[in-house]
Amino acid sequence: MLRVQATRPRELSRRPRRKALRIRPLSPAAAAPPPRRPPAAGAPRPRSRHVAAAPGRRRRLVLRAPPAPLRVPAGAGGGLGPEDAQGNGGARGRRGRAGPCRAGAQLSVPRQGTRDHPPAQVALRDRLVGTVVACFKRHGAAAIDTPVLELRETLMGKYGDNSKLIYELQDQGGELLALRYDLTVPFARYLAMNKITNIKRYHIAKVYRRDNPATTRGRYREFYQCDFDIAGQFDPMLPDAECVKIVHEILSDLQLGDFLIKVNDRRILNGVLAVCGIPESKFITTCSTIDKLDKVPWEYVKNEMVGEKGLSPEATDRIGEYVQLHGGLDLIEQLLQDPKLSQNKLAKEGLGDMKLLFEYLTLFGITGKISFDLSLARGLDYYTGVIFEAVLLQQQNDHVEDLVSIGSVAGGGRYDGLVGMFDPKGRKVPCVGVSIGIERIFSILEQRVKASGEKVRTTETQVLVATPQKHLLSARLKLISELWDARIKAEMLYKKDPTLLKQLQYCEDMGIPLAAIIGEQELSDGVVKLRDVATREEVDIPREGLADEIRRRLEP
Amino acid sequence: MLRVQATRPRELSRRPRRKALRIRPLSPAAAAPPPRRPPAAGAPRPRSRHVAAAPGRRRRLVLRAPPAPLRVPAGAGGGLGPEDAQGNGGARGRRGRAGPCRAGAQLSVPRQGTRDHPPAQVALRDRLVGTVVACFKRHGAAAIDTPVLELRETLMGKYGDNSKLIYELQDQGGELLALRYDLTVPFARYLAMNKITNIKRYHIAKVYRRDNPATTRGRYREFYQCDFDIAGQFDPMLPDAECVKIVHEILSDLQLGDFLIKVNDRRILNGVLAVCGIPESKFITTCSTIDKLDKVPWEYVKNEMVGEKGLSPEATDRIGEYVQLHGGLDLIEQLLQDPKLSQNKLAKEGLGDMKLLFEYLTLFGITGKISFDLSLARGLDYYTGVIFEAVLLQQQNDHVEDLVSIGSVAGGGRYDGLVGMFDPKGRKVPCVGVSIGIERIFSILEQRVKASGEKVRTTETQVLVATPQKHLLSARLKLISELWDARIKAEMLYKKDPTLLKQLQYCEDMGIPLAAIIGEQELSDGVVKLRDVATREEVDIPREGLADEIRRRLEP
Repeated sequence: MLRVQATRPRELSRRPRRKALRIRPLSPAAAAPPPRRPPAAGAPRPRSRHVAAAPGRRRRLVLRAPPAPLRVPAGAGGGLGPEDAQGNGGARGRRGRAGPCRAGAQLSVPRQGTRDHPPAQVALRDRLVGTVVACFKRHGAAAIDTPVLELRETLMGKYGDNSKLIYELQDQGGELLALRYDLTVPFARYLAMNKITNIKRYHIAKVYRRDNPATTRGRYREFYQCDFDIAGQFDPMLPDAECVKIVHEILSDLQLGDFLIKVNDRRILNGVLAVCGIPESKFITTCSTIDKLDKVPWEYVKNEMVGEKGLSPEATDRIGEYVQLHGGLDLIEQLLQDPKLSQNKLAKEGLGDMKLLFEYLTLFGITGKISFDLSLARGLDYYTGVIFEAVLLQQQNDHVEDLVSIGSVAGGGRYDGLVGMFDPKGRKVPCVGVSIGIERIFSILEQRVKASGEKVRTTETQVLVATPQKHLLSARLKLISELWDARIKAEMLYKKDPTLLKQLQYCEDMGIPLAAIIGEQELSDGVVKLRDVATREEVDIPREGLADEIRRRLEP
Repeated sequence: MLRVQATRPRELSRRPRRKALRIRPLSPAAAAPPPRRPPAAGAPRPRSRHVAAAPGRRRRLVLRAPPAPLRVPAGAGGGLGPEDAQGNGGARGRRGRAGPCRAGAQLSVPRQGTRDHPPAQVALRDRLVGTVVACFKRHGAAAIDTPVLELRETLMGKYGDNSKLIYELQDQGGELLALRYDLTVPFARYLAMNKITNIKRYHIAKVYRRDNPATTRGRYREFYQCDFDIAGQFDPMLPDAECVKIVHEILSDLQLGDFLIKVNDRRILNGVLAVCGIPESKFITTCSTIDKLDKVPWEYVKNEMVGEKGLSPEATDRIGEYVQLHGGLDLIEQLLQDPKLSQNKLAKEGLGDMKLLFEYLTLFGITGKISFDLSLARGLDYYTGVIFEAVLLQQQNDHVEDLVSIGSVAGGGRYDGLVGMFDPKGRKVPCVGVSIGIERIFSILEQRVKASGEKVRTTETQVLVATPQKHLLSARLKLISELWDARIKAEMLYKKDPTLLKQLQYCEDMGIPLAAIIGEQELSDGVVKLRDVATREEVDIPREGLADEIRRRLEP
């Protein structure tokens, strides 16, 4: 049986652990402030911003984290929670979100890594997930659902060193089980098991990682992943381009601010290493060092390559000339002419496809936010072709020219070999997919809501059925039942004789926009007094027209 | 610390294990065929159908399962899957839904009790859950989310004998964890931990039970629960009545056919046992026998009480006179006058509240489908007041007068003590809630869809962007990008030059209603040919008006 050594390849948002951030690689030619909003479709950003930087000219600085409101601790992973987003520095030693309640361990959620989501969080998350799912459906994806429990042997050998983070169930007799670590391996298992060779699916669900609380800040052991994948044998780069388009649409729809989607190709990276004289046995370990370039300066990377990975200083310098490059079509053309790289079969294939990708993305009108970045390596083990990663950008203090990456919020790539590992005959199903980092995006949105003072409604109640006098409980029950049956979202207080003040106060507290007041006078007149809670305006509405009037006011 | 001995009290749909079904308890006075549809609001069914049967007069027969299409194996539990719904008799020895693929254990989902849900199932489930959530929101509920992982000690001692069914995680260092067994105990833990004394919440999520495959047919170890609960100190029976109303609304909305909601009160049941001379120590075990009355005849129940539970034949006969009663307000009034029962404080309280409940349900206009049924016991351990359970009814063959219960699809009740078990000072938060058996309802809906030949669409794509000639890939990419940006759900084939036939065939296969065809002529005319896939009608639409035209046709 085949085995992979993949180390969390899809898991974009859990990678950066360091506080260090790097300045967005702006070439001197692009010192003018870049647009803060996406350019209109079909109007790509001026190429000058993305010219190929001369090797070695790129500045890399370690900066402190950017200021609020978009600040996200750079060390926080995919399971970033609200406390961490507020900068309290990780989950260590906390007992969930319980606040002061400390009596008896039985009261806790597991102290490390899980948490309850109260209504305001669920409401906000539903809003976020709604936007993402709308995009997935717009692109024709179907949903599947796989079990949280997988056979242990399905997961083992798929995540390299990280296999130690897999939650195993106690052997209580029967099969040995584990909790899924991501959604990609179960997807591949599902395809192979059902001999599906062609599907476009999304899956949003919780995954589980037994991260070590002592060494991991702000990570959760249970968090949501949000994946879209296209499986099937198709013409080159068409599904790949759609995945990049999806990331662009979602980040635009969510209005998270400026962003950049870095793209690269595993074959290009491998070609680069080959022409620099690196033996294939050192590809993976070298790539994991290259991948740090988005967080630390080149000098650090170079030292690690020479000191720890045992590369020669000369080979390292040659690598450095390539992996510090970034740009657009111009850079692709330049590399296609590169005397060494153009002789490497893999690199040439990768560059050819990269050119195709840029052509398609040009037709989509989104190249203004795309950067072909040779330092992008990601988890390399099951990726076989294009890889990409989206980062949010933020202006750094007064330096309008410095855009700072404040963290990865989406990523993915092509993995043509994974399904074959589950097929007894090794039949491959090419796949490309993207994972949206909704945990991180959620924490950004939550901070933003808090900063804006917006009160997120946790219910959708349209009207409170109220009475101004005592002994009218029956009238309230009859009226609210009519409204429910007419599909109006209605509540009443569970009190026999509440004061009108209390009832109206409840509307204010819960953001209920209307009150339907029924008193003795209204009962004998066959009307209901409809009160606008904000303006306090009251109008008598014939009872039989009440539901329609509520709909007219609230459902545009 | 307090401990409960509750045995799966909320878990309605997993209780019946036997194939035996009983005839709906129709009194001779109600031999006419009952209405097949809910009576109009405010028009309760004639009381005659629900008069108090004289003790001992009720027929109870063991029947074979009713015919398709509504047939559900009576032995199937909450996690009923489609295979079982088709009568293949349980999950034993199967390897999930994979079909022929058998090569290598790694290919399987865990053989017993979990399964993948392919797109058609997820689409149907989404439809079902959408209806249920709409109702919960109509009643002002907020959503919460709690972890799948709970501390082992939170769950232990809450489910009585069934604690052995709790999935425990391996001790890999750190806290001892387990997978949640239901959503009720985590809800109570959440309330106590956060000192919440007042909330109306719903929660739809997976729960886990390590059911023994050797003794359990058709159960799944991972299945969805779907709970709505109202917590807080309120005036009597107002939240309770709303829970019953919610069950009524959901079962009506889902159009599952005729149904009956049985209600009882734990205090009445306890009162009955007390006045029949049963010692309090035998209440729980006696109730678990009474609870079988919906599946087996009274003689069986009586034998078990005398033979296994050690009750005297006289006491058993006295119990029999009560627990075979069922009816409406008349029966409540009758029992309030009962010389023995009216002397029992608990029973009197319960009957008083039951009367109030019927008054409220009368105002809601739903008493036509409510039966006060003294045999309803449910899992008794954490219930403290009203309990209820909804069953679907089906006409039995030619015997129009015989309505057969084909299984419980919702249930719940009041549990005023559970939250206090998690509070260090034992502070109570009264709760009442309902659980909708969506797994069972799902299998009914799925069978119905299969029987009707309806093809459930798994995607929502509105239009396929197609080209009639070669070398038009760029035109397709540009057009589809415009449509996506205009929020139209659009797909194209991932081929450079697909034939028009293939493209139209894809529309047919996937149920895509429209094709937007762009050829050389259309390009030069600035139009797009919009084709109705079903009628094959084609109209040229100016390109800039295409999105609006698609919306006009498909979004009423």
